[in-house]
Amino acid sequence: MQVKRILGIDPGLRVTGFGLIDQAGQQFAYVQSGCIKSGEGELPQRLKVIFDSIGEIINTYKPDLAVIEKVFVNVNPQSTLLLGQARGAAISAMVARDIPVAEYTALQIKQAVVGNGHAAKEQVQEMVKRLLQLPAVPQADAADALAAAICHAHGGHLGKFATSGYRVKHGRLV
Amino acid sequence: MQVKRILGIDPGLRVTGFGLIDQAGQQFAYVQSGCIKSGEGELPQRLKVIFDSIGEIINTYKPDLAVIEKVFVNVNPQSTLLLGQARGAAISAMVARDIPVAEYTALQIKQAVVGNGHAAKEQVQEMVKRLLQLPAVPQADAADALAAAICHAHGGHLGKFATSGYRVKHGRLV
Repeated sequence: MQVKRILGIDPGLRVTGFGLIDQAGQQFAYVQSGCIKSGEGELPQRLKVIFDSIGEIINTYKPDLAVIEKVFVNVNPQSTLLLGQARGAAISAMVARDIPVAEYTALQIKQAVVGNGHAAKEQVQEMVKRLLQLPAVPQADAADALAAAICHAHGGHLGKFATSGYRVKHGRLV
Repeated sequence: MQVKRILGIDPGLRVTGFGLIDQAGQQFAYVQSGCIKSGEGELPQRLKVIFDSIGEIINTYKPDLAVIEKVFVNVNPQSTLLLGQARGAAISAMVARDIPVAEYTALQIKQAVVGNGHAAKEQVQEMVKRLLQLPAVPQADAADALAAAICHAHGGHLGKFATSGYRVKHGRLV
């Protein structure tokens, strides 16, 4: 059975979580995860850290596709703008290397991983630990990134990539 | 006198304006300008169009530095998020090629080009046409991008790059 490597990204200007899993059918295995910290520089420099770091992760682990959390507008519009720019840099790093990018909302990801779209952060961490048989719970941003990858491995891709890879004919997927 | 080539960018998800000028001291000359249209695809695909197009412009015209308009939060938070992502893709394309990026607000740019921070779009277009001795007014997004480049050529860089290129000692720039 073909193994697919999935890169999950939880975008943020200060901290961007990443997580890689290998998927073969309904089986999946942990590869790597961690956090990218953009530091204290000017905005272009911080976006460069995000862009370069994700590029390095892609060059090292060669994922087949990427999954990024859809973000929502913040109560603070300035924060929304900063988060948007960080997410733009993360997606740029992936599309620059022709990695297909799927997007899921936090609700979809929690639903797929915990079975409850409104699960607490700790529940996501705990389920990621269990599903990937990790010795300890991953840091929260890394756990969210791994959860995004698991969500996709759980079949979320049928909905998302339907338009490019599949066609529906007489109500059936062909 | 050394000639510096400046790339100005007016970021937007639907349309990103770009404009290149050559600067030698207080003199500057028009090189090229235009608009990048991201099309109707999914968000990652549209960000790829912005990222790739700016990359191609940089590879073709080899600017020494780039100037991008600082954007403000929109009344619509969803639009703010989309604009942020477009701006993040544009900045990524520049920092990925190690082009230094300066940022100015629309107010600073209009002040530098028209002499009035609250000038109308048409006034900016008209002044860009005059300053660069163009045969016709450039399209609005291209004009804003050229205006950003002119703002920097007009000396805005002293304020902006002060921390990296200059030091102030006993109240004097050294």
